[in-house]
Amino acid sequence: MRRFVIGSARNLIESSRQKYQFERSILSSSYRFLSSSPAADSPSSSSSSSTMAHLVSLSTINPKVIECEYAVRGEIVTLAQKLQEEIQTKPDAHPFEEILYCNIGNPQSLGQQPITFFREVLALCDHPAILDKSETQGLFSADSIEHAWQILDQIPGRATGAYSHSQGIKGLRDTIAAGIEVRDGFPADPNDIFLTDGASPAVHMMMQLLIRSEKDGILCPIPQYPLYSASIALHGGTLVPYYLDEATGWGLEVSELKKQLETSRSKGITVRALVVINPGNPTGQVLAEENQKAIVEFCKQEGLVLLADEVYQENVYVPEKKFHSFKKVSRSMGYGEKDIALVSFQSVSKGYYGECGKRGGYMEVTGFGVDVREQIYKVASVNLCSNISGQILASLVMSPPKVGDESYESYSAERDGILSSLARRAKTLEDAFNKLEGVTCNKAEGAMYLFPRIDLPEKAIKAAEAAKKAPDAYYCQRLLAATGIVLVPGSGFGQVPGTWHFRCTILPQEEKIPAIVTRLTDFHKSFMDEFRG
Amino acid sequence: MRRFVIGSARNLIESSRQKYQFERSILSSSYRFLSSSPAADSPSSSSSSSTMAHLVSLSTINPKVIECEYAVRGEIVTLAQKLQEEIQTKPDAHPFEEILYCNIGNPQSLGQQPITFFREVLALCDHPAILDKSETQGLFSADSIEHAWQILDQIPGRATGAYSHSQGIKGLRDTIAAGIEVRDGFPADPNDIFLTDGASPAVHMMMQLLIRSEKDGILCPIPQYPLYSASIALHGGTLVPYYLDEATGWGLEVSELKKQLETSRSKGITVRALVVINPGNPTGQVLAEENQKAIVEFCKQEGLVLLADEVYQENVYVPEKKFHSFKKVSRSMGYGEKDIALVSFQSVSKGYYGECGKRGGYMEVTGFGVDVREQIYKVASVNLCSNISGQILASLVMSPPKVGDESYESYSAERDGILSSLARRAKTLEDAFNKLEGVTCNKAEGAMYLFPRIDLPEKAIKAAEAAKKAPDAYYCQRLLAATGIVLVPGSGFGQVPGTWHFRCTILPQEEKIPAIVTRLTDFHKSFMDEFRG
Repeated sequence: MRRFVIGSARNLIESSRQKYQFERSILSSSYRFLSSSPAADSPSSSSSSSTMAHLVSLSTINPKVIECEYAVRGEIVTLAQKLQEEIQTKPDAHPFEEILYCNIGNPQSLGQQPITFFREVLALCDHPAILDKSETQGLFSADSIEHAWQILDQIPGRATGAYSHSQGIKGLRDTIAAGIEVRDGFPADPNDIFLTDGASPAVHMMMQLLIRSEKDGILCPIPQYPLYSASIALHGGTLVPYYLDEATGWGLEVSELKKQLETSRSKGITVRALVVINPGNPTGQVLAEENQKAIVEFCKQEGLVLLADEVYQENVYVPEKKFHSFKKVSRSMGYGEKDIALVSFQSVSKGYYGECGKRGGYMEVTGFGVDVREQIYKVASVNLCSNISGQILASLVMSPPKVGDESYESYSAERDGILSSLARRAKTLEDAFNKLEGVTCNKAEGAMYLFPRIDLPEKAIKAAEAAKKAPDAYYCQRLLAATGIVLVPGSGFGQVPGTWHFRCTILPQEEKIPAIVTRLTDFHKSFMDEFRG
Repeated sequence: MRRFVIGSARNLIESSRQKYQFERSILSSSYRFLSSSPAADSPSSSSSSSTMAHLVSLSTINPKVIECEYAVRGEIVTLAQKLQEEIQTKPDAHPFEEILYCNIGNPQSLGQQPITFFREVLALCDHPAILDKSETQGLFSADSIEHAWQILDQIPGRATGAYSHSQGIKGLRDTIAAGIEVRDGFPADPNDIFLTDGASPAVHMMMQLLIRSEKDGILCPIPQYPLYSASIALHGGTLVPYYLDEATGWGLEVSELKKQLETSRSKGITVRALVVINPGNPTGQVLAEENQKAIVEFCKQEGLVLLADEVYQENVYVPEKKFHSFKKVSRSMGYGEKDIALVSFQSVSKGYYGECGKRGGYMEVTGFGVDVREQIYKVASVNLCSNISGQILASLVMSPPKVGDESYESYSAERDGILSSLARRAKTLEDAFNKLEGVTCNKAEGAMYLFPRIDLPEKAIKAAEAAKKAPDAYYCQRLLAATGIVLVPGSGFGQVPGTWHFRCTILPQEEKIPAIVTRLTDFHKSFMDEFRG
């Protein structure tokens, strides 16, 4: 557990060690809990379960792999998958009819419909042979047919089945750069765009580039999206935590950044980069522009690469906040290529589109020299290119139908319907959490999550200890067993030691929210009744 | 250049060092060679080309990134892309009308058409809303509509835009496992299948799992597909080379494996795995079953994981050879889960389908314990899942239309047309190479490549040295400049020191092959005339 090693984060190390033990124990105990044989759709159900030793064992694999953790698909979720299978075979096996996955930002798995125009274009690019058939005009909008032709003309030989340039198809990068310019009001260069299979591989690429050893540190928010801790662990670096201030709506204070930077430097850590997630995951806050300026100034002064996770840029739900990209903020401060190294991550999985399964995304890499960019290109070229459907979709989300386009009306109705519903769901869940005894929940200004804090009774903490679980993991597991609702314990994201949280997505379809609130409220009451001192 | 460090591979180290210097110099010299400003579609054309220092420089990035090389998209290809742009703006800038990319196994970029049935299914899964419209029956085969429904029913909520299980959609893994059983005649477990964005990420995952430090070695063929050397370099391990025997048609001798294993062990290297590429890349040989049995026995005896790159399993062109999976071979020897750890890599990019841009593939992981498989699953879960279109396509290639299906006739006609044409092209190019002075070329039994050996005149080698290039890179660059044909120098794959080769794909469309042969022959004659002693 090398990742949390810095000064005032000592307690976090302890808590993290504990968590590690807790999580390992959750694994075994959840099997006991279920008292069932391993089910079919699980990584743990091998045909090879006898006691003879295998050639490759935990003691001989890369320890960085063992150290890496990813709670969003961790043990609670594995348990939920098992419960789901049990319900399928025995509908009355549990006191609920379905599993409600509030653990992951996966909108379409919960019934969100894709944007029709985007899917029309993708289907036509997948099977261009139908483009000039007469039946196609009855099935697809004229707009999507025209757009598919435009995209095909940007692909050498119209070959959607060919590897593309390793940064992505040039014409699509042109479109994305133009979209960024419209968004920011500052120029964007298509040669700065690297298209990737979702944002995750882009984050890995930057970690791989920047981390040389455990002496290299990456400043990450706590709580954080565990992709970052996992990627830093896999690349053998050190996570330098900075705490978001829950009391000020998960505020990001530059004084806290400075304090953690200095502490880590005094320990011999070379801090290479600062990760900022805006809008926040799991915390849902949207940064104010003034705050962003101070962050840019800090990175410039301290010589840090700014890694800006901006995948929730379309997900802002409150009128008083607006998304500003860090590129726009830094350019508006007069800082250019030579002043700050900045990488912005974007994905087709979030926003109003929620196309997680398409694995599309890009990073815009600015402020790096030609020689370093050639190295990034080389690493991208080893995997040849990202998937073309994902590339096309990334260009579509950065350049959706405009006023006057045939599809604009239906597109904007679909988009606005999804975003306004998400805003309502966020507010309903936030209010519901704040009504629960011992629970406080900041506003979900953006992203897809709430991260309420729960003050657990001493007796519940003791019960968790006896069950060898972190208290928040214990709560989440009890909730799952009682209601079928899947949350992720705060310990999977990091939290101030001694505080407990969980992450809940705002994604269940609106008609299901009242039932979720009822189930959650009833469970919470009975849990508190059971453990109240 | 830590990767080539083993005993008898000393010469290879030297040659590799040289190559490194050569390749670095090719970079600068190609700019001189072109005497043009950086063009638009290149990673090196940054808006930031002044002399001020950037924050992140080559001296401060991860040295493993710098060490990694991938010649398939290396400097010759970057040069070719520049030439192509020049031709577009000035059609008579060069003595040829088009660039012929024979550097990469990217069939559809050279005009190969996708299998219609596969694309129909993909398009329908991309836009399921049209599935029950009447026009759809006029545009798509009844078969593909039915198949799309089947696939959608395997996806929870029919949500093709949702993240799937991190190993891939269970129903698709069932289909793939069934396809493997049909192929091999031995059982396959869907829980052993991990769907990935092409085979490359799967190879990276296994390297990440097995390599702990530079003291861990991976036995790789020389010549090899440079994904392996790149991945080993990125993960900080040591490539332990074994030489394929060119004199016996790129034979893989177990005595050579033993020799290299012992030498590396005597140097303190722990060899973890053996990479075998069958059919061979870049070498095009197909292993005989007896040979494969000896390889399996060697891995079992020596406790090595067998990493079987079987992405060319459909690409066999000679009647006397047949593809046998290593899983089938090991099971036919009576070896099961506990006897040998075996990973088989498959991809949708190769075969007769050639769907490179879809980034689909899988690995079948057998002989690993439950605990290690959970670690593989965890690492897969950090990236959530591979793209769903790629997953669907992977299931289609492992379970294509069968006799009696409506689409069978057109499908099999398309498949056979592609494969028989590839066989003819391989033979034509092989014969053409063998007619060139100083060139010998083994038979292309399979895969998509020829790897001819070229005995260069002493004067040509001196000229290459003067130009600070490897002799084969010099030949390839001269060929490109004269003909527009893009080959990859043998130094990008590794070769016996003092020998020179290049890799040429068999993928240009059949009607273009005669012109390629003529251009190649004319160039070679004039090159040899220029340098003959």
